[in-house]
Amino acid sequence: MKSVGQALLKKVIVKRPLDSHKGDYGRLLLIGGTYPYGGAIIMAALAAVNSGAGLVTVATEKENISPLHAHLPEAMAFDMNEKERLKEQIQKAEVLLIGPGLNDQSQGEMIFRQVFKQLHSHQIVIVDGGAISLLARLQLDLPLSQLVFTPHQKEWERLTGLCLTEQTREKTRLAVERFPRNTIIVQKKHQTCIWQAGQKEVYQLDVGGPYQATGGMGDTLAGMIAGFAGQFPNASLYERVVVATYLHSAIAQHLSQSAYVVLPTAISQSLPRFMKEICQ
Amino acid sequence: MKSVGQALLKKVIVKRPLDSHKGDYGRLLLIGGTYPYGGAIIMAALAAVNSGAGLVTVATEKENISPLHAHLPEAMAFDMNEKERLKEQIQKAEVLLIGPGLNDQSQGEMIFRQVFKQLHSHQIVIVDGGAISLLARLQLDLPLSQLVFTPHQKEWERLTGLCLTEQTREKTRLAVERFPRNTIIVQKKHQTCIWQAGQKEVYQLDVGGPYQATGGMGDTLAGMIAGFAGQFPNASLYERVVVATYLHSAIAQHLSQSAYVVLPTAISQSLPRFMKEICQ
Amino acid sequence: MKSVGQALLKKVIVKRPLDSHKGDYGRLLLIGGTYPYGGAIIMAALAAVNSGAGLVTVATEKENISPLHAHLPEAMAFDMNEKERLKEQIQKAEVLLIGPGLNDQSQGEMIFRQVFKQLHSHQIVIVDGGAISLLARLQLDLPLSQLVFTPHQKEWERLTGLCLTEQTREKTRLAVERFPRNTIIVQKKHQTCIWQAGQKEVYQLDVGGPYQATGGMGDTLAGMIAGFAGQFPNASLYERVVVATYLHSAIAQHLSQSAYVVLPTAISQSLPRFMKEICQ
Amino acid sequence: MKSVGQALLKKVIVKRPLDSHKGDYGRLLLIGGTYPYGGAIIMAALAAVNSGAGLVTVATEKENISPLHAHLPEAMAFDMNEKERLKEQIQKAEVLLIGPGLNDQSQGEMIFRQVFKQLHSHQIVIVDGGAISLLARLQLDLPLSQLVFTPHQKEWERLTGLCLTEQTREKTRLAVERFPRNTIIVQKKHQTCIWQAGQKEVYQLDVGGPYQATGGMGDTLAGMIAGFAGQFPNASLYERVVVATYLHSAIAQHLSQSAYVVLPTAISQSLPRFMKEICQ
Repeated sequence: MKSVGQALLKKVIVKRPLDSHKGDYGRLLLIGGTYPYGGAIIMAALAAVNSGAGLVTVATEKENISPLHAHLPEAMAFDMNEKERLKEQIQKAEVLLIGPGLNDQSQGEMIFRQVFKQLHSHQIVIVDGGAISLLARLQLDLPLSQLVFTPHQKEWERLTGLCLTEQTREKTRLAVERFPRNTIIVQKKHQTCIWQAGQKEVYQLDVGGPYQATGGMGDTLAGMIAGFAGQFPNASLYERVVVATYLHSAIAQHLSQSAYVVLPTAISQSLPRFMKEICQ
Repeated sequence: MKSVGQALLKKVIVKRPLDSHKGDYGRLLLIGGTYPYGGAIIMAALAAVNSGAGLVTVATEKENISPLHAHLPEAMAFDMNEKERLKEQIQKAEVLLIGPGLNDQSQGEMIFRQVFKQLHSHQIVIVDGGAISLLARLQLDLPLSQLVFTPHQKEWERLTGLCLTEQTREKTRLAVERFPRNTIIVQKKHQTCIWQAGQKEVYQLDVGGPYQATGGMGDTLAGMIAGFAGQFPNASLYERVVVATYLHSAIAQHLSQSAYVVLPTAISQSLPRFMKEICQ
Repeated sequence: MKSVGQALLKKVIVKRPLDSHKGDYGRLLLIGGTYPYGGAIIMAALAAVNSGAGLVTVATEKENISPLHAHLPEAMAFDMNEKERLKEQIQKAEVLLIGPGLNDQSQGEMIFRQVFKQLHSHQIVIVDGGAISLLARLQLDLPLSQLVFTPHQKEWERLTGLCLTEQTREKTRLAVERFPRNTIIVQKKHQTCIWQAGQKEVYQLDVGGPYQATGGMGDTLAGMIAGFAGQFPNASLYERVVVATYLHSAIAQHLSQSAYVVLPTAISQSLPRFMKEICQ
Repeated sequence: MKSVGQALLKKVIVKRPLDSHKGDYGRLLLIGGTYPYGGAIIMAALAAVNSGAGLVTVATEKENISPLHAHLPEAMAFDMNEKERLKEQIQKAEVLLIGPGLNDQSQGEMIFRQVFKQLHSHQIVIVDGGAISLLARLQLDLPLSQLVFTPHQKEWERLTGLCLTEQTREKTRLAVERFPRNTIIVQKKHQTCIWQAGQKEVYQLDVGGPYQATGGMGDTLAGMIAGFAGQFPNASLYERVVVATYLHSAIAQHLSQSAYVVLPTAISQSLPRFMKEICQ
């Protein structure tokens, strides 16, 4: 069990090279926000853009584009039901996040299937929320992409069959090892653990708390992980995911000094400031 | 007549247990915001989420979802005219708020009837605004749920037949006692009183003032009451409602030190900070 | 020529009586924001609500309700093309503002005619922007309501036939006197003058400046005048209009100490703070 | 190679004459934001209005008006597909910005052609983003308007045929000279250069950095250039463009002291404050 320390934060969040452009900081495609969960992908997008992602495109329902742009004109957005455009955008993306606010019924399933069958091995794919439930139900073959899963406890049960009381460290370790090598699992819970298949060490958070127990917290985390995944080539993907997960809770903990509950959007808003403090 | 003191505030708003999750802080369903009152349920939702509610779902008109999400991606939202979905969401909810911006004509009536006939005894139901008028007019049997009413003076008249000049303490007490035992009445007026049927004591506010005399103030209060109702099992529901009502006006009073009029949304924005100060 | 001093500010903006409610602070109906000028009525509504207006209802185009509510859930809003509802709301209103972002072609004309023929003598009616142009063109009989006009220089020309070079104090005074007794004219220009038919004195602003030369400034002023018109019965309507007009520019002047251009929405946001400072 | 110094900033951004009005600060028409790039024209409009532009009208897709107005009620906005209205607005405009979020396919092409054939020699036209690609592809004759191009490196290649490795100072200078005399080229790159055909000197930025490498940065720059182009007749257009470009990066650099990534909208928000500091 390892804790995240300043050294790792500083290893991941480094000064950007002077002569660089937005293409160097990730082409992200975020897929989700089906009715009635439109807000989820908005929160994920706010987190990704505020993390420093270079180019963020959101595939969501048509009706959700207006409130997304009211928050974040920085993101491009299209109707996820346009099959051709979705196909094109999946091909272009370096990092895909699928799942925040994706319903796990027929509409979500159709989109999930389309995404999964098109993934390439060089892509990083973060599977969150509704997409985890769909994956568990549909039992599709996993793509060869670099996969990151962000299950909460019930989703972890769906993925592994381990019920809540069985989710001990040892059983979880074994379950992680059944995923393809290098798969990353962000096991969300009190003191979240971040695993990687094929690696002995596991990081466990010692920051964060119950002020985070509010809707949208996970969507924001997923967006941050996507944002970090497209940057910081100086660190391994595992380290980037670990640091994104840590920072999400560390910011919440800091903000909780003057807030009973920390809203997910407040974390995203604070990201540029906290990231700057780390790399100074 | 009792005043609300620091002791009661600290009894209700306590530190959250470390190992808890959003499901522990209330599953809320807020119903209202029919045309042309869409803003009302937005304000209620802002108040509920900023109070720390775990999961907030809003049933409103389709056109109102976009501005709601522009304020608050943290809330889920669906078209209240989808009967099946509404039914499902009513069943899932632990706390229901019905009424902010609900018109008291045919559309509102239909929704109100659907909600009322489906309520269970284990649910907390806050009846506000248009829903009070509808209840008074339709004379439905009250459900066995734990009920909270938030009438202003005209609505109190509609509910009890007491005209404004008759709304003395004694007559109000008698009127309260005609409600089912434990029903809570937030009698909104200058120095609002909070009653509970079957209980002798009544709390009366000694905070708040005319800087609150602006549209949407009641919607925000209703949202706060819903937010508090889903949390704080350490205190009685009556105490939670009392503290929510007190805090709503106390925050307004504080903000009025530098504001001629205190907008309802400004109260919601300040909630996390004031709640933190209490439990520190 | 009189200047506005602290005494007048303090005469108008007084502490609110303790036992008062939103109905005491004006029932306003704001009409405007036709395509492509939707933003104008949003700015007027922001100004009215932040001035402390008790109840603000906006009649605008259906498509404009969503961005209005994204700014201001505190306002009610309906489709101005619903004739019955418009009729009803006109009857209920104590203060009407017509004109911000009202086009002066057929659609605007139809609405303008409907409003004008329905006005009562006990209503205060602020005629701004497109409504001034329509009035000048249509040559309708003026209603018996208390009228306030807010013309800029070209609109003043349309209303009176005085071209820009003829708009001297003397000619303007004569033109003002051709309006019904007590009609108030806010003659917008560098050092705006506020006239009242039948009254010798005229107020002229000595605050404000070119940082206000940006689109929407007049819409915000009109909304403030409407907000003030519904409050402050302790002062004459003329005094309320004078103080609203003064404060609009005084706030802009203050904000301009740290802003090259002062956006209209920034003035509205600052209103509660500046009004509080005056009545302290 | 010249750097931008305080003297030039102070030459361009001067105090406004006391007796002036919004018509003195530019009538701008911004054209862009086609699906799925609606956010781009929102960011451009935010930049233009916050730069002090007098009147800003946006031609974009109908669905994009709502989120635009949620950010910026100060801007007028209409459906770009209304040919008659677009024609009318093009005629009225003094400064046109075409391209932020304009797709370079059939819809964008149609609009681009309509705009280009209607331009007059007294208009300032900023050609950005999709409009640069369209111009390069369609090989239209350039209008006699005063032109400003804002290409990034790939767009510069499309315009001139110079591939990235060929974009040396000397070859760029030759390419600039093939444009009509006085055409201004903002060559966006690490240490952006601002050229004018027929002029020997070129300005190069020594501010800005990789915290700007995020989507929407160029849209914001284009909006600032449009905003500056409509003001400051005391300076040449070239100087206005140089100062807008400099200030865009200088503000970003300043904000980057406490932000790892600087969002485009954060620059726009800071514009009034930074501009004020310069002319104090």
